[in-house]
Amino acid sequence: MSQGQTAPVLINGAWRPSSGRKQFCSSNPATLQPLQPAYPVSNWSDCDQALDAAADAAEKLRTVSRDRLGEFLEMLAGLIESHSRELVQLAHLETALPIAPRLADVELPRTTGQLRQAAAAARSGSWALPTIDSKANIRSCYMGFGPVAVFGPNNFPFAFGSVSGNDFAAAIATGNPVIGKANTSHPGTTRKLADLAFQAIERCGLPAATVQLLYRLEHEDGLRMVSDSRLAAAAYTGSRSAGLKLKSAADAAGKPIYLELSSVNPVVVLPGALEERCDAVADEFFSSVLMGTGQFCTNPGLVIALAGQSTQRFIQAVTDKFKQAASGTLLSTGVQSSLTAAIDTLNRAGAEILCGGQSVQGRCSVGNTLMRVTGQRFLDQPEAFQTEAFGNAALVVVADGVPQAELVLKALEGNLTGCIYSALSGADDEAYCCLAPALTQRVGRLLNDKMPTGVAVSSAMQHGGPYPATGHPGFTAVGIPASLLRFSKLTCFDNVRPDRLPDLLQDKNPTGKTWRLIDLNWTTADL
Amino acid sequence: MSQGQTAPVLINGAWRPSSGRKQFCSSNPATLQPLQPAYPVSNWSDCDQALDAAADAAEKLRTVSRDRLGEFLEMLAGLIESHSRELVQLAHLETALPIAPRLADVELPRTTGQLRQAAAAARSGSWALPTIDSKANIRSCYMGFGPVAVFGPNNFPFAFGSVSGNDFAAAIATGNPVIGKANTSHPGTTRKLADLAFQAIERCGLPAATVQLLYRLEHEDGLRMVSDSRLAAAAYTGSRSAGLKLKSAADAAGKPIYLELSSVNPVVVLPGALEERCDAVADEFFSSVLMGTGQFCTNPGLVIALAGQSTQRFIQAVTDKFKQAASGTLLSTGVQSSLTAAIDTLNRAGAEILCGGQSVQGRCSVGNTLMRVTGQRFLDQPEAFQTEAFGNAALVVVADGVPQAELVLKALEGNLTGCIYSALSGADDEAYCCLAPALTQRVGRLLNDKMPTGVAVSSAMQHGGPYPATGHPGFTAVGIPASLLRFSKLTCFDNVRPDRLPDLLQDKNPTGKTWRLIDLNWTTADL
Repeated sequence: MSQGQTAPVLINGAWRPSSGRKQFCSSNPATLQPLQPAYPVSNWSDCDQALDAAADAAEKLRTVSRDRLGEFLEMLAGLIESHSRELVQLAHLETALPIAPRLADVELPRTTGQLRQAAAAARSGSWALPTIDSKANIRSCYMGFGPVAVFGPNNFPFAFGSVSGNDFAAAIATGNPVIGKANTSHPGTTRKLADLAFQAIERCGLPAATVQLLYRLEHEDGLRMVSDSRLAAAAYTGSRSAGLKLKSAADAAGKPIYLELSSVNPVVVLPGALEERCDAVADEFFSSVLMGTGQFCTNPGLVIALAGQSTQRFIQAVTDKFKQAASGTLLSTGVQSSLTAAIDTLNRAGAEILCGGQSVQGRCSVGNTLMRVTGQRFLDQPEAFQTEAFGNAALVVVADGVPQAELVLKALEGNLTGCIYSALSGADDEAYCCLAPALTQRVGRLLNDKMPTGVAVSSAMQHGGPYPATGHPGFTAVGIPASLLRFSKLTCFDNVRPDRLPDLLQDKNPTGKTWRLIDLNWTTADL
Repeated sequence: MSQGQTAPVLINGAWRPSSGRKQFCSSNPATLQPLQPAYPVSNWSDCDQALDAAADAAEKLRTVSRDRLGEFLEMLAGLIESHSRELVQLAHLETALPIAPRLADVELPRTTGQLRQAAAAARSGSWALPTIDSKANIRSCYMGFGPVAVFGPNNFPFAFGSVSGNDFAAAIATGNPVIGKANTSHPGTTRKLADLAFQAIERCGLPAATVQLLYRLEHEDGLRMVSDSRLAAAAYTGSRSAGLKLKSAADAAGKPIYLELSSVNPVVVLPGALEERCDAVADEFFSSVLMGTGQFCTNPGLVIALAGQSTQRFIQAVTDKFKQAASGTLLSTGVQSSLTAAIDTLNRAGAEILCGGQSVQGRCSVGNTLMRVTGQRFLDQPEAFQTEAFGNAALVVVADGVPQAELVLKALEGNLTGCIYSALSGADDEAYCCLAPALTQRVGRLLNDKMPTGVAVSSAMQHGGPYPATGHPGFTAVGIPASLLRFSKLTCFDNVRPDRLPDLLQDKNPTGKTWRLIDLNWTTADL
């Protein structure tokens, strides 16, 4: 294939051929056929040029008003909407995610809504927690700090995409340029999104390198990128093994890196809840596990239940539903082989396969899989039984009582979410009180009577959690304003002359509506 | 020396002999004589027991009210005041810092004030940024997350002390137990402070292991401690080399570690300011560099000035003052040898020594040292010229103009502070506009016309900055409420039943005064 047929990269405001000589093709998971065109594997020269351009753009962005950042994000949201048909088709082709409702009616509106929330946050500036100590004349706020590299995941081509999703929106809203690294399973969708972003850049007059796009890097160049002195921070959503390598490189260079890694999202199902509403809980669980063929970071992969008849009924009901439902198409053959490998690991450790467990012949699919293990066995090898089976699979741990269930919870690693289903009658309240503290400590988000797969773009969301679910338990990847704090430095102005202060810290409230902490009271008033 | 004469460690509510067999003595820097008693070097068994006890205390602390945490911090402040004579004497003996005004009139009141601010923050809960999305019924706040190891520095025996200072106050106010690691230069002061803290624990009925104290660890045990699964986080203030080793161990285990490392705190002195007020600026600089014999994290160790007569006059004025002033006693012979080694490094790189540069015969002291180098030479070896000379020494970089000064600033590593002195007439405004952006990017706190050595315990303080001044530019070590966020995890409650929510997130405002972000508006009202 000649150079001309390989897709261009976006560096410093120009779509141009990559300097890299290698290329790759994505494939349609539904047909297992490769897709055209080919995309380049960038070499260090691409990265180096993108970093130079991003560093320059970061300096220029410091003089760009918050309103203009907001305008850009809103314009991009509008462009995504006006190209929604094409985007949805492209994403469907590359990921096999259903067009409706998933891509067209859920993920795309979520993405544009998120961009508009980020725009509103950029305009108001309240996210920056402007803080004034009037007596000491010391003032501080969070401020953007430089180029951010965003490594997007395979499972949300729009909403977590490297040039359209949560990390992107947060980095831009705080005034930082983004170097997007497309997920290699949907390069065409990402290219189209970058094209729209670049159109919005030109219309809004932002620096040309505010958004750049590469598709794939050599592993060593990825490590070099996240530790480069020109980069301020990186954000990565994906597999634990690759994420921890990037973390190690970034840590050694003192660079913040925000990770969203694996999570099994434990769900505790107490007997009283099953006595009351076994079918409803089984139904919610079934829908949550199989939604998007289970390819969510918050997919409930681990159920903890107490031995007894109600739990048996629950397991039977879920098994029946799993068997009856057709198994969905997975995002890639890579996801398929990881999933069967994880099921094998769990099975070899001693989990019984109640249904599924095998690849579906001739398709990029694995049968809907439910497994079971006793609490005792889990406690013998807690690490093995926390192997993430990313996809349409779950493991039920049957504990012999509340104390053993508590031990199981205490053996858990950090997770994004944890749920407890309990009786509405109060019959499970004692068990809840015993189990909730251990679970709460180990998760970012605790739910009651609700499955974790809906991650609302809410001001109160925590889509994060203790290591190894993420790299730091104080940050969230979703939710505005909080997710914006990741891409900023806290900057203090001590005795700085009034006309030299950022507008957020001047005596006059810059918008009349910005929330500021003045002398320990939150207010929108002028000083 | 028999076991009985070695000071005990405080583990799990008991002052008892260390299991370690080695011991050390601190010494009086003023006389260079060793002090009694000896203190133990703990082995892993001590650490292991402290970690077990701390993990247990962390669970118990989760049920302790915020008011009780406040009461404890206030009681400790009161006990420190009622034992101030003894504390000040002890600290003076171990550090040679002057009794008055430094220890008695500045650092001790700062410490008790900081504890009381932390108490107020604990009681109000506003630090936790309680956030409610009423429509989605999603609620979140920051919450304490477990045991914190605090490694205190040599230069502030009270205010940054491992069982009395900023990190300690922040960790306790957020509901976490502390394992203090005393600085080995003042173990007696820290022992006394731990004794007072333990009295306060008993009176307030807090878990016995809320505060524990070790004095010295084998290096490998320090690394093991900060990466131990029972620990939630660590805080370290001290030398860069030791800090980065701890960071590396903590990072690999996914544990947050908050570092305050070296900083040269650049001060830009523009010619117009010197035309207007050369003597005053020289005087402020002189006082700031020599205060506490220069042993502050925010000591202004690097001046950037523009070539010309006013800068020559400034350098001459400072040199005269440095020569006339007696050189202070340093904190330890270790500090003394590090300081002379740093001066040698700067000198070998090409800095001219204008005064000082040598140890004072028979004393733990180094002559007040001023050095000079050209901007060009600095740019040839920017790393060497940023060697921190911790103590009463500073380097003046004379740039040949504003563009070269900007290059010097752009060659700087991350620092805690940066200052610009400029003419009140406006004569330096153009230079300010050119230099301030580059400096602001590289520091946590930007000052105008003011030296950086006063670090107010202010709600708007940022005592932190980009790497390698600290490990993350978004956190501050001083200032309440912001410094408390370091020792917490963001925890979200999604659809959690009302009576199971933390009081901060219930519909009713728990104090009537807690600031909460409800539907994107800050309020103290009930929901």
